[in-house]
Amino acid sequence: MVQCVHSVQELRNILKPLKAAGKTVGLVPTMGALHQGHATLIATSAKENDITVVSVFVNPTQFGPTEDFDAYPRTLDSDLKVVKNAGGDIVFAPSPKEMYPSEDMTWVELTGNITKVLCGKTRPIHFRGVATVVSKLFNIVGPTNAYFGQKDAQQVEVLRRMVKDLFFDLNLRIVPIVREESGLARSSRNTYLSAEEKAAAVVLSQSLKKALEDFKAGDHNKASIIEKVTKIIQAQPLSDIEYVECYGLPGLSELKDEITAPSLLALAVRFGNTRLIDNIILE
Amino acid sequence: MVQCVHSVQELRNILKPLKAAGKTVGLVPTMGALHQGHATLIATSAKENDITVVSVFVNPTQFGPTEDFDAYPRTLDSDLKVVKNAGGDIVFAPSPKEMYPSEDMTWVELTGNITKVLCGKTRPIHFRGVATVVSKLFNIVGPTNAYFGQKDAQQVEVLRRMVKDLFFDLNLRIVPIVREESGLARSSRNTYLSAEEKAAAVVLSQSLKKALEDFKAGDHNKASIIEKVTKIIQAQPLSDIEYVECYGLPGLSELKDEITAPSLLALAVRFGNTRLIDNIILE
Repeated sequence: MVQCVHSVQELRNILKPLKAAGKTVGLVPTMGALHQGHATLIATSAKENDITVVSVFVNPTQFGPTEDFDAYPRTLDSDLKVVKNAGGDIVFAPSPKEMYPSEDMTWVELTGNITKVLCGKTRPIHFRGVATVVSKLFNIVGPTNAYFGQKDAQQVEVLRRMVKDLFFDLNLRIVPIVREESGLARSSRNTYLSAEEKAAAVVLSQSLKKALEDFKAGDHNKASIIEKVTKIIQAQPLSDIEYVECYGLPGLSELKDEITAPSLLALAVRFGNTRLIDNIILE
Repeated sequence: MVQCVHSVQELRNILKPLKAAGKTVGLVPTMGALHQGHATLIATSAKENDITVVSVFVNPTQFGPTEDFDAYPRTLDSDLKVVKNAGGDIVFAPSPKEMYPSEDMTWVELTGNITKVLCGKTRPIHFRGVATVVSKLFNIVGPTNAYFGQKDAQQVEVLRRMVKDLFFDLNLRIVPIVREESGLARSSRNTYLSAEEKAAAVVLSQSLKKALEDFKAGDHNKASIIEKVTKIIQAQPLSDIEYVECYGLPGLSELKDEITAPSLLALAVRFGNTRLIDNIILE
């Protein structure tokens, strides 16, 4: 039986005696519209913790003014079923007012390359919104372990840095990308795609897979790898590339000519009005 | 016996079994140079908690480029004695590198009036530095209660807002201003004052005390109260006023003509090179 709570106080009242009894708590922060990728995060948490809390909150502060905040799918009823089937225990689904109680806000914001490259170039406030809401969730839940998907690779690097810098006392657990059979990375935004766009979008995972093969075969030249990926995607007429970039791990450090292992090869590409991201670690 | 630890890991190793055993932990964040004001914070914590941790860290990020970071008194040996005598248990004295592990930092920053008025006008990065370092300390120690002095009234309002917005799971305990017999508010910066300046600086507490008397006697006019305080201070030739201002509590809201109770009457005044602050709550 999954419990669905909407207030911070109610959630704390539930968790307090469990923690006092020494139970471990896993937190899976989501924006809902749960798919197999989220289910994997939840199942991983359920395996590793006594209690699993799944937050479902479409966070307004991580959407830019022209982005899809209003259109973002909200499917709490089916989300509850996904959580139940994956072994989660509690869904925390707060209102925006519950999460942002003051008109003038307190922000958590990272400086440096880590939030400025990749998606940060076109989504300048996105990672400030992510860091802020995740800080709130960490403080509300006080988890032993927190689960995020490698799909949002830049978010992962931002949160690693934030946890280190602000000394959050928890383990970040990063779960590999879950893909459809076609190779398309699972995403709540896949529901926006037409059948034709969805078929076309498999080029993303195909291009990344090819890049990893080339890297393993000895091509460590950054320009060469990026050019080959770009060409594969451009051959698909429905695609519109926003970026194909490569940065060093951890921390998204700038690479010169050569790709050193491990590095992150990441891309953002539009199909129609839908912006998809995908990535692979070259190592 | 006071234990002095320098690393986050060591402090966590000490606190973990104590917390698991259900002990309450009080945190007193300081920049060292401990005086009777700090001793009162520590003694209050010692009375209210099983364990009291006093952090001693001159936080570089809350000093502006022209401020007294290098000159700020560092007196760890005598600080340890103050902590011991006041009933504290652990001193946490980390290095800047320990507290700021990354070159590119993660900041906690508040927007709105609360950080822009009073000291925020002339110290634009100060409260970002305070909010950031206090967030780190909260996450490192995980205190039940955290102790701050009313002397830093704007800091108190900033931290109240931050704790509310980011959902830190702790109680903020605010302790009244501790004064010398003359009425001068205790401050680590009082050591910068010459004997003549120190004698002159009693005008600050005298002017605030008079304002409270006037307020209680029925003068609720903001301009009148501020003018009377200003005139009292200006009559002291060694004084150089930075501001005398009045804002509503909580949150430092703008007041129109009338002072509504409770409001904060706060001032910053230089004597020679030393900038002193003081305040009183009108209610």
